[in-house]
Amino acid sequence: MTDFMGELCVLSGNAHQSLASKICEYLKIPLGQAEVFKFPNDNTFVRIKENVRERDVFIVQPMSVPVNDNLMELLIMIDAAKRASAGRVTAVIPYYGYARTDKKDQPRVPITARLVADLLTAAGANRILTVDLHAGQIQGFFNIPVDELTALPILVDYFSQMPSENLSVVAIDIGISKKARDVAERLKVPLAIIEKRRQGNDSNAQSLNVIGDVKGRDVLTFDDEIDTGGSILSAVDALKVAGAGDIYCCVTHPVFSGSSLEKMVDSPIREFVATDTLPIDVGQCDSKVTILSVAPLLGEAIHRIHGGLSVGALFEYHG
Amino acid sequence: MTDFMGELCVLSGNAHQSLASKICEYLKIPLGQAEVFKFPNDNTFVRIKENVRERDVFIVQPMSVPVNDNLMELLIMIDAAKRASAGRVTAVIPYYGYARTDKKDQPRVPITARLVADLLTAAGANRILTVDLHAGQIQGFFNIPVDELTALPILVDYFSQMPSENLSVVAIDIGISKKARDVAERLKVPLAIIEKRRQGNDSNAQSLNVIGDVKGRDVLTFDDEIDTGGSILSAVDALKVAGAGDIYCCVTHPVFSGSSLEKMVDSPIREFVATDTLPIDVGQCDSKVTILSVAPLLGEAIHRIHGGLSVGALFEYHG
Amino acid sequence: MTDFMGELCVLSGNAHQSLASKICEYLKIPLGQAEVFKFPNDNTFVRIKENVRERDVFIVQPMSVPVNDNLMELLIMIDAAKRASAGRVTAVIPYYGYARTDKKDQPRVPITARLVADLLTAAGANRILTVDLHAGQIQGFFNIPVDELTALPILVDYFSQMPSENLSVVAIDIGISKKARDVAERLKVPLAIIEKRRQGNDSNAQSLNVIGDVKGRDVLTFDDEIDTGGSILSAVDALKVAGAGDIYCCVTHPVFSGSSLEKMVDSPIREFVATDTLPIDVGQCDSKVTILSVAPLLGEAIHRIHGGLSVGALFEYHG
Amino acid sequence: MTDFMGELCVLSGNAHQSLASKICEYLKIPLGQAEVFKFPNDNTFVRIKENVRERDVFIVQPMSVPVNDNLMELLIMIDAAKRASAGRVTAVIPYYGYARTDKKDQPRVPITARLVADLLTAAGANRILTVDLHAGQIQGFFNIPVDELTALPILVDYFSQMPSENLSVVAIDIGISKKARDVAERLKVPLAIIEKRRQGNDSNAQSLNVIGDVKGRDVLTFDDEIDTGGSILSAVDALKVAGAGDIYCCVTHPVFSGSSLEKMVDSPIREFVATDTLPIDVGQCDSKVTILSVAPLLGEAIHRIHGGLSVGALFEYHG
Amino acid sequence: MTDFMGELCVLSGNAHQSLASKICEYLKIPLGQAEVFKFPNDNTFVRIKENVRERDVFIVQPMSVPVNDNLMELLIMIDAAKRASAGRVTAVIPYYGYARTDKKDQPRVPITARLVADLLTAAGANRILTVDLHAGQIQGFFNIPVDELTALPILVDYFSQMPSENLSVVAIDIGISKKARDVAERLKVPLAIIEKRRQGNDSNAQSLNVIGDVKGRDVLTFDDEIDTGGSILSAVDALKVAGAGDIYCCVTHPVFSGSSLEKMVDSPIREFVATDTLPIDVGQCDSKVTILSVAPLLGEAIHRIHGGLSVGALFEYHG
Amino acid sequence: MTDFMGELCVLSGNAHQSLASKICEYLKIPLGQAEVFKFPNDNTFVRIKENVRERDVFIVQPMSVPVNDNLMELLIMIDAAKRASAGRVTAVIPYYGYARTDKKDQPRVPITARLVADLLTAAGANRILTVDLHAGQIQGFFNIPVDELTALPILVDYFSQMPSENLSVVAIDIGISKKARDVAERLKVPLAIIEKRRQGNDSNAQSLNVIGDVKGRDVLTFDDEIDTGGSILSAVDALKVAGAGDIYCCVTHPVFSGSSLEKMVDSPIREFVATDTLPIDVGQCDSKVTILSVAPLLGEAIHRIHGGLSVGALFEYHG
Repeated sequence: MTDFMGELCVLSGNAHQSLASKICEYLKIPLGQAEVFKFPNDNTFVRIKENVRERDVFIVQPMSVPVNDNLMELLIMIDAAKRASAGRVTAVIPYYGYARTDKKDQPRVPITARLVADLLTAAGANRILTVDLHAGQIQGFFNIPVDELTALPILVDYFSQMPSENLSVVAIDIGISKKARDVAERLKVPLAIIEKRRQGNDSNAQSLNVIGDVKGRDVLTFDDEIDTGGSILSAVDALKVAGAGDIYCCVTHPVFSGSSLEKMVDSPIREFVATDTLPIDVGQCDSKVTILSVAPLLGEAIHRIHGGLSVGALFEYHG
Repeated sequence: MTDFMGELCVLSGNAHQSLASKICEYLKIPLGQAEVFKFPNDNTFVRIKENVRERDVFIVQPMSVPVNDNLMELLIMIDAAKRASAGRVTAVIPYYGYARTDKKDQPRVPITARLVADLLTAAGANRILTVDLHAGQIQGFFNIPVDELTALPILVDYFSQMPSENLSVVAIDIGISKKARDVAERLKVPLAIIEKRRQGNDSNAQSLNVIGDVKGRDVLTFDDEIDTGGSILSAVDALKVAGAGDIYCCVTHPVFSGSSLEKMVDSPIREFVATDTLPIDVGQCDSKVTILSVAPLLGEAIHRIHGGLSVGALFEYHG
Repeated sequence: MTDFMGELCVLSGNAHQSLASKICEYLKIPLGQAEVFKFPNDNTFVRIKENVRERDVFIVQPMSVPVNDNLMELLIMIDAAKRASAGRVTAVIPYYGYARTDKKDQPRVPITARLVADLLTAAGANRILTVDLHAGQIQGFFNIPVDELTALPILVDYFSQMPSENLSVVAIDIGISKKARDVAERLKVPLAIIEKRRQGNDSNAQSLNVIGDVKGRDVLTFDDEIDTGGSILSAVDALKVAGAGDIYCCVTHPVFSGSSLEKMVDSPIREFVATDTLPIDVGQCDSKVTILSVAPLLGEAIHRIHGGLSVGALFEYHG
Repeated sequence: MTDFMGELCVLSGNAHQSLASKICEYLKIPLGQAEVFKFPNDNTFVRIKENVRERDVFIVQPMSVPVNDNLMELLIMIDAAKRASAGRVTAVIPYYGYARTDKKDQPRVPITARLVADLLTAAGANRILTVDLHAGQIQGFFNIPVDELTALPILVDYFSQMPSENLSVVAIDIGISKKARDVAERLKVPLAIIEKRRQGNDSNAQSLNVIGDVKGRDVLTFDDEIDTGGSILSAVDALKVAGAGDIYCCVTHPVFSGSSLEKMVDSPIREFVATDTLPIDVGQCDSKVTILSVAPLLGEAIHRIHGGLSVGALFEYHG
Repeated sequence: MTDFMGELCVLSGNAHQSLASKICEYLKIPLGQAEVFKFPNDNTFVRIKENVRERDVFIVQPMSVPVNDNLMELLIMIDAAKRASAGRVTAVIPYYGYARTDKKDQPRVPITARLVADLLTAAGANRILTVDLHAGQIQGFFNIPVDELTALPILVDYFSQMPSENLSVVAIDIGISKKARDVAERLKVPLAIIEKRRQGNDSNAQSLNVIGDVKGRDVLTFDDEIDTGGSILSAVDALKVAGAGDIYCCVTHPVFSGSSLEKMVDSPIREFVATDTLPIDVGQCDSKVTILSVAPLLGEAIHRIHGGLSVGALFEYHG
Repeated sequence: MTDFMGELCVLSGNAHQSLASKICEYLKIPLGQAEVFKFPNDNTFVRIKENVRERDVFIVQPMSVPVNDNLMELLIMIDAAKRASAGRVTAVIPYYGYARTDKKDQPRVPITARLVADLLTAAGANRILTVDLHAGQIQGFFNIPVDELTALPILVDYFSQMPSENLSVVAIDIGISKKARDVAERLKVPLAIIEKRRQGNDSNAQSLNVIGDVKGRDVLTFDDEIDTGGSILSAVDALKVAGAGDIYCCVTHPVFSGSSLEKMVDSPIREFVATDTLPIDVGQCDSKVTILSVAPLLGEAIHRIHGGLSVGALFEYHG
């Protein structure tokens, strides 16, 4: 194995400093000093407060809400590090936003996930480290190396303690069925899939079909991210109608826009499990919500990237 | 609407000259003159035999077998057209190869679908026109405009003549379930999905689960491409075990490597329907195999791209 | 003169639709149709609602507050237009933000104004049209053509009606002294300059020196943008101490962050004049505030760029 | 001298594994593990089977027959190494194909040798190591560093054992006369040149003129590559007519398309000498054919490139 | 055929305004207005004095002495035209300098001919039009279209009036033998070649061997450029020793550094013929020196490039 | 801190070898061996005479007169170093020429300072080290890291020995007023500014206004570069008219075109102080002219860049 020459340096934008701190704890190094703030004219400004010449710089910043501000913070930090002669700059993006705008599925729309990849590259990022992309193909939007980690083993490990004979995994949308199958396969339980279908000519009316058998079974729903929670709440209704028993939900990225977390807690869902790729304040909801940290996963990956060790090997004994 | 300034010119590599000819018939223009051959040392050579200065050049070449030769032919033709001062060069790739290598799903593998996009761009292509990409995200592998057409309406139109009350669409793999759902939705019939799952510790042993109900129903399987036919033949077996009635198969891209076409014809499949995005010699098999041409679709798209007309509008009244 | 081939199309983001509408009025064309909104997960989305193939697209969007959102909107609109095969995309940015972060004047800071130029180019902009950059060198941050217009003649014309024998122009900061001189020269009146200087060892304590004579004279202060208003209010105090008479203020870009507009109105300033490169709601303040529109200037420039006419000639008879 | 930081790693495509193995023997390191194969659909696939993070990777692959397959293998291996975070990737191309298509000598032809350079760069190669380019200018088709080695000293050393008083070197084509002169100069023997000239109006009819004296002299012909052998066999005839004695042939790159090797052996040529920049199976022909290995040359160059030692110094005491 | 949309505009740097004027005469258009001069601090400055928006701009500038000044003038003019929104910029470089530094033939030297290609591209040139490159491969140093014209037919036509039965063409260096052969073939006369060879261990001592027969024959020497004239004067001596009769010299590019023109005139050469790709003042030497103009050739090529007509066709009936 | 891996190597073009030698003295290393000369045809040629593989190469070359020759030398040296596999190439440009052509202030002019940045990047420079750019924004013309040093502390230190109670700093042009203020602030003395203004309709007639008080005071003028000296001599006249006492002049970059140095010496200026960023031969003028060397500043910066130490820290205790 071959160390990257320069000394390791982890910086954080404002999006998720607590995650960056946990990563530094894992790595047993102090978090690098930087100030990141807005001028009164709403212009984001960055100043890195320690020498980064030739160092191996990792900048931790998920594209959480406010998305554009956090993205611009990240781009500006990369620019500052590049112009300050950093040896290598890795953007650590635990949650890669704009990932659902990854193809032209109607005329004259953007492919923003590619645009974001180009913006990161134009700013000067040399590598990307991320977790559970909405679509694996987003790796190919980059020509710089991308290390995509997966939090699936963390989620699966958590649920593997549960008795599985009466459990089914449910993909709450046909688009997530492949990853849900991976969860089901790891847990050695059956898979069912919920298919949304337009009703008649009204483009908003949809029916939900549960494909596969859930009657009398406990179910674990899986999705890669939860946003308004609308899909999952409809799915819960459809599953209850189809006769499902206890309902557990897991998700990698808890976006939780608006009051969706509260709605989730008020629903018949028994437990909701997510990771901390995004900052999340569970507030009063903590009895029903479990957050599992990706900090050790990211910390170990940074350690391996810096040290020239295989990152793929991180996943060899899982699942 | 605004015409592209230069005169239209359609050229063809050696991969699929009959399709290029049909496109030119649709456009009512002669196929452009070019010679494309290999020297004895196996080097591909190209000479465009008519003036293309400032013209709007379309080069028709699917990435069919032999894939690397056909790709290199295309790249070299693009280079020749660019250096001959073509006004604009559009690579018309009815079948985009290497599309299944579109992400790093294990350590140290390439993302060849992105590499191919970069090769086309490096050679000098200004635009891409293609049909039914394996994953829509491949559009985002390009920074030049991509017009992705879909042959789904052609296939759906063909099957929409069949009585549908006893028909189900089956995704023969969980990865194709979303597009199969689109077919099912257009035909207004139910969807079932076949899930492959590893058996025990032997990584080669797989079981096939049919998720959803097919008992006593006729089924139409859908996949975007058929290669060795292994998946579809296993799916047919599983569907028969599950009690399915008549089995129809449709696919956009008939790759048919080796003797797979013959195997298909010898199977219980009642009818196999594909398009001509790839050259295919149905030989003796024509009683069971139906080929629908994409030439009018591509011809109309070229007409619209050249003329500054909306290509999206091509699909507005379908499905 | 030579028309750009494709038909003219003006689009607007959400930052300043009223300016875009005025520009279209000048050009006697309807504003192009596009929807630009945020999904619940705070992701900006864009859909251009009319065919833009081969057209000459101008997207109007100043980088006003919220700056990062407006910039991302612009980048995403450019990406959508490029992928929709626009013939040419011009970003019309009446106010170019981040312009004050245009050099490294301390260690490890970014050059965000260059970064923004690279982001615009990476997104696919073919040209830039802008007004009164903070520093003319920002033109050189681009390798695509930049047309920088100036609103100085509009402001100077307004004040040229005033009696000038007792008037002086004052640069409110040494950094703006060159442009203030241009204003003074056009108005044929003397120039004075306010120099801020640190006091002792306290880096925040500053004294203001008025260099040049203002005693008993009416003064017109000039700055390219007004933000918190702090500088101008201090300048007004210093000018009053120095014995200045009536104080008029003019500025190209009225950023007016926070409650600065109100503070301005409450100050001894007699009249405040700005342009509408940024959206501004003068509300109750309109007796003291005059807004001059740059829409005819931008409209005429777009007309000339589209038609291949000289833009430089726009300014030949001014000043 | 300065070592490249990362550990050395030599990989091989399928084109010429025996050469790669010999190079590794010279370097006393094991050949790196990689699988390179075609899927049934004719898509080349690559998986590097050991960690290459930050390592100094050399990929050995001549562009031998099948040329396009071997080139694509190389490009895909480079992509895989780049995405696997290799510290540096050097494409070791002992025989650079497409080298004869290095200029536009008729209208509307490609410059494929430049295209190939761009493809290698687009794939992510950081450096090139090659042997005896058809034209030295091909170095300039790259903007990454190219180390071009020459096998001339190996060939000259072999023939320098022969008595030289009655020997002449013959350039078998006017295009190779400069390099043949170098051989003649190193051997301190006279040079003659064969000039092909069109006969009358028939573009295929050619006469061969031997410029310079060969009557009664043994001759050593030189060319950089031998392909169909047509040129050399015609040259041999012309030399015999001109009264030449024994004929020896040497060439760097033995392409030997079709049955050309057999034809060569059946001709009056007394001995044929080439290097192993291309895989060659001399079969029954070995009494007349001598193959000299470039493995030590390439191995030493790799050692020097990795170790920061001068490669130019490799050639200082030769010739 | 398809006209380039914008109006034609020919500009000239200071290197060779008389050639630019002759080209404009051929094209029956006035030379475009531009001022190109040096500030006292030796900085070259350019101002284009007429509107070039969307126009098809050709900038005529050979890389004659002073080479670096003329190259920088050209680069700066290209930059000015690009930033002034020219529709297309073609650098017309009748003599491409630095062409002999086209490969690394010793360690740690540049490939300046490629560097110059990159500088032209970086400055914003869209196309190149040039005459008789030292090596055709220099075309491949560019990725923008290059039209390389040849003045050989002009030179050959001139000499084709001479009686040819006693004439031989002589390549004055082995490096030029291929082009000299083309001249010989067009004139239907024999070819001889002069080979320089190092003498003993002194690297400066050279002997010249005339390969082929010149005894009693008139000879026409050919080279692509003449610089100090040293090579040609030595060649003349060697030819005289070998018994040659009258000696005529022709060359495309008359660089004539220092007093070489005078030396040429004082030598036994009977007539010296060159083109005006470079400015040349024949002064008192005109009885022995003939200059043939390439202006009609360049003018016709510009006419064809602008009009979308084949440039290759220009040469179809020659030779 | 982290050393750049490769060994340090300082090379010099012909522009200012004495500065390069002084830098090497400071660094206690020998100056790297390279030959840089012109062929008779005026083509600049470079050969680096020692191995630079993987080394950390710094090339010292101000853009002094002859500007274009010195720039091309630098570009060609960078190309040679890049192709010779240098680990990193830093262009050390003590005086960055073309810096005054940094924006389009009239129609159809170039932005040569950006063009030069692109040429340096295209040639292969990895970093820039420079002194006192005419405008700090020129840093942003680069996307590679730029370290801009300032010689102001050197100049200020020199003058800080003078009694300051009767001293004023004068900006000799409004464009330099900001930097002159920095000098004044460091010396804790007042600032005055000279404003040139057009007189009537004659564009050449100018009047000079001294803004601020200089009557009876000694003055120190400041400019970043002195060229023809016209501005400073006019300024001296205006200052004398305004009643100034002794006049001292300081400047970073002594361009001194033509006979301007002599004129300066013949003027009432008491002492002229500059640095050696440009080669300057003070000849007989040395009683009035003081040259302060930037060699220790550049040497220390190179030491820090090579060693991964903060360059910003160089300036922390100054001024």
